[in-house]
Amino acid sequence: MIEITLPDGAVKKVPKETTPMEVAKSISEGLARNVISAKFNDTVVETATPLTQDGTLTLYTWNNDEGKKAFWHSSSHVLAQALEELYPGIKLTIGPAIENGFYYDVDFGEHTVSEKDFPTIEKKALEIARGKHDYKMRSVSKADALSYYNEQDNEYKVELIENLEDGTITFCDHSTFTDLCRGGHIPNTGIIKAIKILSVAGAYWRGNENNKQLTRVYGISFPKQKELTAYLELLEEAKKRDHRKLGKELELFTFSQKVGQGLPLWLPKGAALRERLEQFLKKAQKKAGYEMVVTPHIGQKELYVTSGHYAKYGEDSFQPIHTPKEDEEFLLKPMNCPHHCEIYNSSPFSYKDLPKRYAEFGTVYRYEQSGELHGLTRVRGFTQDDAHIFCTPDQLNVEFKKVIDLSLYVLRSLGFENFTAQVSVRDLDKPEKYIGEPENWEKAEQAIINAAEEKGLNFVIESGEAAFYGPKLDFMVKDALGRQWQLGTIQVDYNLPERFDLSYKGSDNELHRPVMIHRAPFGSMERFVALLLEHTGGNFPLWLIPDQAIVLPVSEKHEKYAEKVLNSLENHEIRALIDNRNETVGKKIREAELKKIPFMLIVGEQEEGSETISVRRHGGEDFGSISINEFSDLVATEINSTLKSF
Amino acid sequence: MIEITLPDGAVKKVPKETTPMEVAKSISEGLARNVISAKFNDTVVETATPLTQDGTLTLYTWNNDEGKKAFWHSSSHVLAQALEELYPGIKLTIGPAIENGFYYDVDFGEHTVSEKDFPTIEKKALEIARGKHDYKMRSVSKADALSYYNEQDNEYKVELIENLEDGTITFCDHSTFTDLCRGGHIPNTGIIKAIKILSVAGAYWRGNENNKQLTRVYGISFPKQKELTAYLELLEEAKKRDHRKLGKELELFTFSQKVGQGLPLWLPKGAALRERLEQFLKKAQKKAGYEMVVTPHIGQKELYVTSGHYAKYGEDSFQPIHTPKEDEEFLLKPMNCPHHCEIYNSSPFSYKDLPKRYAEFGTVYRYEQSGELHGLTRVRGFTQDDAHIFCTPDQLNVEFKKVIDLSLYVLRSLGFENFTAQVSVRDLDKPEKYIGEPENWEKAEQAIINAAEEKGLNFVIESGEAAFYGPKLDFMVKDALGRQWQLGTIQVDYNLPERFDLSYKGSDNELHRPVMIHRAPFGSMERFVALLLEHTGGNFPLWLIPDQAIVLPVSEKHEKYAEKVLNSLENHEIRALIDNRNETVGKKIREAELKKIPFMLIVGEQEEGSETISVRRHGGEDFGSISINEFSDLVATEINSTLKSF
Repeated sequence: MIEITLPDGAVKKVPKETTPMEVAKSISEGLARNVISAKFNDTVVETATPLTQDGTLTLYTWNNDEGKKAFWHSSSHVLAQALEELYPGIKLTIGPAIENGFYYDVDFGEHTVSEKDFPTIEKKALEIARGKHDYKMRSVSKADALSYYNEQDNEYKVELIENLEDGTITFCDHSTFTDLCRGGHIPNTGIIKAIKILSVAGAYWRGNENNKQLTRVYGISFPKQKELTAYLELLEEAKKRDHRKLGKELELFTFSQKVGQGLPLWLPKGAALRERLEQFLKKAQKKAGYEMVVTPHIGQKELYVTSGHYAKYGEDSFQPIHTPKEDEEFLLKPMNCPHHCEIYNSSPFSYKDLPKRYAEFGTVYRYEQSGELHGLTRVRGFTQDDAHIFCTPDQLNVEFKKVIDLSLYVLRSLGFENFTAQVSVRDLDKPEKYIGEPENWEKAEQAIINAAEEKGLNFVIESGEAAFYGPKLDFMVKDALGRQWQLGTIQVDYNLPERFDLSYKGSDNELHRPVMIHRAPFGSMERFVALLLEHTGGNFPLWLIPDQAIVLPVSEKHEKYAEKVLNSLENHEIRALIDNRNETVGKKIREAELKKIPFMLIVGEQEEGSETISVRRHGGEDFGSISINEFSDLVATEINSTLKSF
Repeated sequence: MIEITLPDGAVKKVPKETTPMEVAKSISEGLARNVISAKFNDTVVETATPLTQDGTLTLYTWNNDEGKKAFWHSSSHVLAQALEELYPGIKLTIGPAIENGFYYDVDFGEHTVSEKDFPTIEKKALEIARGKHDYKMRSVSKADALSYYNEQDNEYKVELIENLEDGTITFCDHSTFTDLCRGGHIPNTGIIKAIKILSVAGAYWRGNENNKQLTRVYGISFPKQKELTAYLELLEEAKKRDHRKLGKELELFTFSQKVGQGLPLWLPKGAALRERLEQFLKKAQKKAGYEMVVTPHIGQKELYVTSGHYAKYGEDSFQPIHTPKEDEEFLLKPMNCPHHCEIYNSSPFSYKDLPKRYAEFGTVYRYEQSGELHGLTRVRGFTQDDAHIFCTPDQLNVEFKKVIDLSLYVLRSLGFENFTAQVSVRDLDKPEKYIGEPENWEKAEQAIINAAEEKGLNFVIESGEAAFYGPKLDFMVKDALGRQWQLGTIQVDYNLPERFDLSYKGSDNELHRPVMIHRAPFGSMERFVALLLEHTGGNFPLWLIPDQAIVLPVSEKHEKYAEKVLNSLENHEIRALIDNRNETVGKKIREAELKKIPFMLIVGEQEEGSETISVRRHGGEDFGSISINEFSDLVATEINSTLKSF
């Protein structure tokens, strides 16, 4: 008999050679139906692997990331078999699971594969899956493994095997198909109910551009057809919501070859939207006792030597700027904190003056390789909604709570209700990794945890995840497509106050070191606007959206009245456009819908006569003919429902 | 007889050998009393120089810059004589007039001169002046001139004479003193009624640091004692208003050694003031049809090669920024126009879309030698209140007028009423100097001149002062101390539209080149705030000033009520502080006065009882006990009197 410990701590005594699937059955038939993969003592095993010693067993279903990984990796075997059957003579290389689905890199030889072949491949793969073939692992000697693939003339697998040690090599069989494989499969192919080939792309063998180019076939699979359908809809939706596409359509930002890649140019509508976001946060920050400062976008190299950033990032950053006549070196600022430390240092403070909260919409520049740039989410220049709070260690808990309040206010005002938090603390076993007094760390960690609890956050604590200079709290938001985005870090810092020799005079008349908090609820204006675009699909909250309404005269005859309406809207501080082209009102409505303008205000004979407007909401809702005052109330009510005051 | 033409065109026939002074007398005795210098046929002459041919004569008084120049240059002779008498054996070098006064560079040998010696020098110089010695010019041969100064062992004058041609050398005598001199003196020393020695400083012979260091003695003189007194008061006042001093006292900005010289850090009060200025202009610009954009602070070198700036300024600018992995070069942006051109270029426009008016508070970086940096007026990084208008040639006049309107609105809202303008146009004789079609230039110049006239500006037209790329209009303002500042250039540009290949589709369906207008009413936020500080002495207009009021409880007992008042002021959107230190109200008032806070609100027993505040204006005016509502009205009235809506 052996002892199997389950994740909840329960221990089961079972006969040696019992399989994970049998353990699952012994717990419940329902669990057994859903178990598709397992881990035993930190090693991925098959559900059919006989267990031969005491150990800890974790069972995975489709709902675990590990379960999905096994599912998708197993699917790649099915894909490979289908490809071999359809394209005889091809050479398989590797086929891992990825974040969403799997791929297989294949040397197709004389064959080519393109989108038109996908249905055939899918059909063949599904046929194989329906055969309910068990995945069976077996050990193979290195010699046998090499001879197997040499016979097939597959130099890729041969190369892989040559780098493995004899005794560790396993093959996986299912149906008539065999693959070199470390394991981690679902019980049988029958669980795979839906397979979709997503794309093909070129990929160098082993990622090295000096090697042969292979064809990477991307696919995804699901245990239910309707899950595939939902996923494809999501993909479609994500494509529609791609912030690069929407940013262009809504005229928010652009890029210029001449200015340089990764350096966004904000067009009028985007700049105005950004300004509204900034003013919104400025207003809340003012109430929260922040003071705005403005600092330059460069600093002497010495500034970053002092902060430690130069030693750490100097080589991988934009290189120093020299002056023509003097021996000076400047760097584009990669962050605002050193500048704010210098502001703090420009006058003496007593404990009574603290906390000082310096905020700045500070544009920073960080070098990224051009291949890694992506729209507004990965750029070379971006504006942080940055602030640094300098406080006494005793003020940390209260300040942290205030920052949480502000962060939650920001997220909720922008329609994010679905968020969690992570508190990252020290690894207590490795005190040498951290700067700062242990009692201050203790105090800070407790301050953060208490703050998170008092504010009712849904949070986890991760040990060892703190930075060397302090513990932190991260907010994670889920967007409308269920994707996670990390937002709004709140970071405690004992390092910079030390490096910049910051101090305040305590009530004991001695000099003390303040603690510093870094925080940025948006993170960066660029990334946040990208997130908002993808979250809302461009249907920004009414208070934020570039154009709140468009006036649509039904004919030229009503242009004058339309202009009058527009004027009146401006007086009500409603951002509105007019579409007085010589087009049908139907066409005007369709185009306004595409532009995602929340309200269409149609004016014709009847409206002009009664001094009203016919109000149609984006999407079709009809508010009938109402006065401009009534419309203004409508707008105000909607805005006030999302945008509370802080 | 000869014919003397006067500036008004009148011609006088006078006997040969008539002097300018005699001509003055023939016009009026009053003029003769005031004439101190003259110019004959573009050459400076003495008032006693006999005129021997026909020509044009201009007579100068103290009220002309040329008159002052002669006055101060003549005074330097008197100073030199005084110094020779007080410090025998010194060697004189050169002694010109400067913008305010004059100096003489002297090799003092074994003597030293310091501030304590100034009264003695002034007394001696004044004694000499009172002798009413005539200045008399005489020609000297080179040999005689050299022998004169060789005898005196004055190698400096010898060097000067060696570089002159025989026949052109003149000496000037007055009293017992003789100096090598080209001429341009007042009639006699008696006109100099007040002399002040201002400072001494080191100065290298001929400005070359390899030469011997001389002592430069700075002085100023006036025809009336009270003018000297007024000037010294002005100097004192300017010192008090020095923006570097006020900026520190009012906690507006600071500099940091580590961040780098010439890179201001805006402290909370300064950043808030700047933000108010920006919001003020943004609001007016919005009404004027501008659209804000946001662009990065760097651009690829290619951007500036295209714009032509790299070829022109590249070597003297901050040097290119390299990336660590790719072959790229970026430059800190020295101006925003290339970025705005790229924004214009990002979408196609028709003539119906124009004008496009892109505005940005764009921070730019320009290298200045460290010795040339000065507070906020000469910096290495500054924020322009920049905008670029892209319009058709036909729209130029209207757009120009709109920009003038905006500029005047800005200046008047900030308390500048005393300004003039200069229109800079082509030199018609040198058409090769200018880019762009002559007919467009003609149109643009006429558009500007008409605009300036229609707007009733007090302006002059300067031929040949236009840039190679277009004509312009500059505003000059006089500050409270009567000093001129150049502000708010409005510049037409035919060059960048060409270089960036900008176009719009005309009504003829063909592509045309738009015209570009650059404009910045403030110039830069840094320089403008410096100017405002020196103009107002820190007593900013009420709408702009950092703290509008301070609540001063007379004792601890009234702190609660004071807090309540503060709260109520915040609700009225009045920016207020509280001074609840345990100090006498007298001391609190004195300190609030120093901080230039416009309103002191004193609260004690009586005020608390009647729910009022005792209002005292900066400077002492007493408004008695009034309610907060009444005070709020008072503030609003004052603000509305300067800050009209645009």
